Amino acid sequence: MTQPPDIADIRQAADRLRPTAVYTPLLESPLLNASLGGRVLVKAECLQRTGSFKFRGAYNRLSLIPGEERGREVVAYSSGNHAQGVAAAAAILGLEATIIMPSTAPAVKKSNTRALGAEVVEYDIATQSREAIGNELVERTGATLVKPYDDPGVIAGQGTCGLEIVDELCRRSLHPDRLLVPCGGGGLIAGISIAVHDALPDCEVFSVEPANFDDTARSLRTGRRERIEPGHHSICDAIITPEPGEITFEINRRHLAGGFAVSDEEVLRAMRAAFQHFKIVLEPGGAVALAAVLAGRVEVENQCTIVVCSGGNVDASLYARCLA
Amino acid sequence: MTQPPDIADIRQAADRLRPTAVYTPLLESPLLNASLGGRVLVKAECLQRTGSFKFRGAYNRLSLIPGEERGREVVAYSSGNHAQGVAAAAAILGLEATIIMPSTAPAVKKSNTRALGAEVVEYDIATQSREAIGNELVERTGATLVKPYDDPGVIAGQGTCGLEIVDELCRRSLHPDRLLVPCGGGGLIAGISIAVHDALPDCEVFSVEPANFDDTARSLRTGRRERIEPGHHSICDAIITPEPGEITFEINRRHLAGGFAVSDEEVLRAMRAAFQHFKIVLEPGGAVALAAVLAGRVEVENQCTIVVCSGGNVDASLYARCLA
Repeated sequence: MTQPPDIADIRQAADRLRPTAVYTPLLESPLLNASLGGRVLVKAECLQRTGSFKFRGAYNRLSLIPGEERGREVVAYSSGNHAQGVAAAAAILGLEATIIMPSTAPAVKKSNTRALGAEVVEYDIATQSREAIGNELVERTGATLVKPYDDPGVIAGQGTCGLEIVDELCRRSLHPDRLLVPCGGGGLIAGISIAVHDALPDCEVFSVEPANFDDTARSLRTGRRERIEPGHHSICDAIITPEPGEITFEINRRHLAGGFAVSDEEVLRAMRAAFQHFKIVLEPGGAVALAAVLAGRVEVENQCTIVVCSGGNVDASLYARCLA
Repeated sequence: MTQPPDIADIRQAADRLRPTAVYTPLLESPLLNASLGGRVLVKAECLQRTGSFKFRGAYNRLSLIPGEERGREVVAYSSGNHAQGVAAAAAILGLEATIIMPSTAPAVKKSNTRALGAEVVEYDIATQSREAIGNELVERTGATLVKPYDDPGVIAGQGTCGLEIVDELCRRSLHPDRLLVPCGGGGLIAGISIAVHDALPDCEVFSVEPANFDDTARSLRTGRRERIEPGHHSICDAIITPEPGEITFEINRRHLAGGFAVSDEEVLRAMRAAFQHFKIVLEPGGAVALAAVLAGRVEVENQCTIVVCSGGNVDASLYARCLA
């Protein structure tokens, strides 16, 4: 297996990202704190370039492509946030990008990916395999496949979000008790865990997933990668992966204290709370960690809890419905 | 007249605010830039503590209350954002706050002000004078009246938003051509102008107001404070002041290049654009400067334009309607 990234890789990624990525704020609401009886700090990654943390990993991974391969295409498959991250990073670095997206992906994600200059190839999630389409493209064109999470360069890029959390906590002299992170394939939480545990080894880190898509939570319990049986549905389109990545789980099984799952209704409530208390727009998958806190999955009273809100690419119609 | 604040007052305010205020990000959307043909950077003050820039001025002003008056009450009148700023600042500094609010203010602003620990006195905007109610309270209790904008301590606090803009532009080696700021009584734009012109004397600064409430734009044209005739309506509840402040206009007439006015429909479009491109929640009054840019009031092609988005305290029902 490829070697997982370490803290030095994440620091190098931070140096690469500094000129282009947003240093996202850690927001706090005195009113929400008062109602919960503890401090909750929200890392607003929806404010990241392209509306989600995915730009960090994509830009770092693309920066690592050797010079002699730079003229070639990059290919990625994604339901939308990784797509936009790769498209934006490719545009900055002068690379051609082709993104393989399910035809059912939110309209805003498909149109933004195209507007960022990438070619979008749509596929039918029920009858076609994105891996097969991607592999065929790679073989035919010699393109570099940019995986959404199971790649050390991608994980190191996502880890820069964790470095910022640590910096900001140090600046405010805060010591967090626990950290909750949305989890699909596990790239974001893997990168953040390495960065946070380097500075704060006692901070408990938990994954949060949609109900019936809690493959990481289940895998943490059994100690091996568990696969979700098909047939379930969730509004959290960004993080409905069937099983943990190989590299990400190798990291996460060592760093994570456990995992939670939240229902669609709990997620919608968290999106409303983010609107009300933090004035940020969250998509369903970006709101699961906040949902776990608001649903009482974890003790927050008299504690300091960090919540990563990982993305905000939601269609206006769903958002308006969630506020109604 | 009281002396206007200078850059030293603003720097001192920044030192006071550092432990409690949010250093808000300057956000940029490559897609919006591409569609406008220039760079537009948005200062997201809706992410400030209490959901608007008003916390900056309120906290700085309350910090300046002499020790021997600290035991007393503070009183403010406000449609809502200054109310929440004063309430939050008073709670941090251990002062009792009474806020005089119109009964027609958005529900979220009234309930948040109460939740922050302030007493709210509602008045009928058609039949009662908030100044009279405030003066009566001050005379009866010896409370300190915290004006919403026409106060050097408040203006210096708002100016810290300008210092952050300058810092961030320097960090990215960007030189702005112009800066647009929402304007009610003129406290925010006055403070920002002093801070920005200290470092960037060539940057053109423009006020943006709701149509029919463009008292600052009219006053800039005539050179003296013009008063708006009553009878108009706007969705921009936060900035429908009838005339510029005395101190604020003294500053603004020296610093501002002019002023624009925008319609309710243009404001709603800007709120949608902020949702889509920046993932931030804006209230109508907070979106007027972005509205002026999107409506083509100012040339942005091949320019670098800074837009202050000053608040996000909007009721969910209005926001859902604006997205529909």
